[in-house]
Amino acid sequence: MKQLQDYITDIPDFPKEGIIFRDITTVLSDADGFRLAVDELKKLLEDIEFDLIAGAEARGFIFGAPLAYELGKPFILIRKKGKLPRETVSQTYDLEYGKAEIEIHKDDVKEGQKVVIIDDILATGGTLEASASLIENQGGKVVKILCLMELKGLKGRDKLKRYNVESVIAYEGA
Amino acid sequence: MKQLQDYITDIPDFPKEGIIFRDITTVLSDADGFRLAVDELKKLLEDIEFDLIAGAEARGFIFGAPLAYELGKPFILIRKKGKLPRETVSQTYDLEYGKAEIEIHKDDVKEGQKVVIIDDILATGGTLEASASLIENQGGKVVKILCLMELKGLKGRDKLKRYNVESVIAYEGA
Repeated sequence: MKQLQDYITDIPDFPKEGIIFRDITTVLSDADGFRLAVDELKKLLEDIEFDLIAGAEARGFIFGAPLAYELGKPFILIRKKGKLPRETVSQTYDLEYGKAEIEIHKDDVKEGQKVVIIDDILATGGTLEASASLIENQGGKVVKILCLMELKGLKGRDKLKRYNVESVIAYEGA
Repeated sequence: MKQLQDYITDIPDFPKEGIIFRDITTVLSDADGFRLAVDELKKLLEDIEFDLIAGAEARGFIFGAPLAYELGKPFILIRKKGKLPRETVSQTYDLEYGKAEIEIHKDDVKEGQKVVIIDDILATGGTLEASASLIENQGGKVVKILCLMELKGLKGRDKLKRYNVESVIAYEGA
């Protein structure tokens, strides 16, 4: 039986020499692969109580939305600056080169709500750390940060020590 | 019982005077609203045979992914230029001011495959027309273009006359 890893495409020396890029689009583009991915993520939510799922733009939407639908939870969007139509709260964070800014709608999270944050890949952890701050600043509690894949060499967990972080697949490298 | 329309937030005079912006994020952020939205879209796929679902970045992912998961279909991504890691084919199209370019992976669609394209809103139809061209250029057949909401005043259907276009909710205005 195929494992989730079998659906991921390794692209050697991309975007630069020595890096193996892990492409998850071939998980989605296979009906069995996509089902397996969502089901594995779902298993990692069985042991916790939570009120809503927050997905990080854009690939977090691909996994967060089916989970929210399946589990009957509200789905909120963590988006790049300027994409949400109502009043937002935003958070700036550092990238390797430069800065990025993400936001949520101000009314998305209510005091005391338990939130699961979903993204496809845990890399350096910058986006996820900023996402968690946004939710906490609104009074929410981040009960889990859940990713399909984790690149351990980039040490994203070091930034996310305060959180319950889980991934379906962990690769040793970057 | 609440209808889908009850979950959509009308924002008057946004982005400019006289326009009512229809905000679908409040559909997602209500568990019942999100379930209803995906279920209504699912109903509109009951009468056709198809091989895969293509979702347009980024909000098309929110509805396309749960449908693909539920219906056991592959999910492919229509993304803005430069976001997909393998060999792509791209299509440029006109916006109100300037141009945009979208792409799919070259191997996403095979000759003769029947494709459903999903997006949240049918507005001017530019992105959807370009999406359909991308799929047809790879030999795919666009059997349906499906949107949650349609703004009839923007006449997107005029661009999409060759296609089977359906939406769950249609608003008369822009």
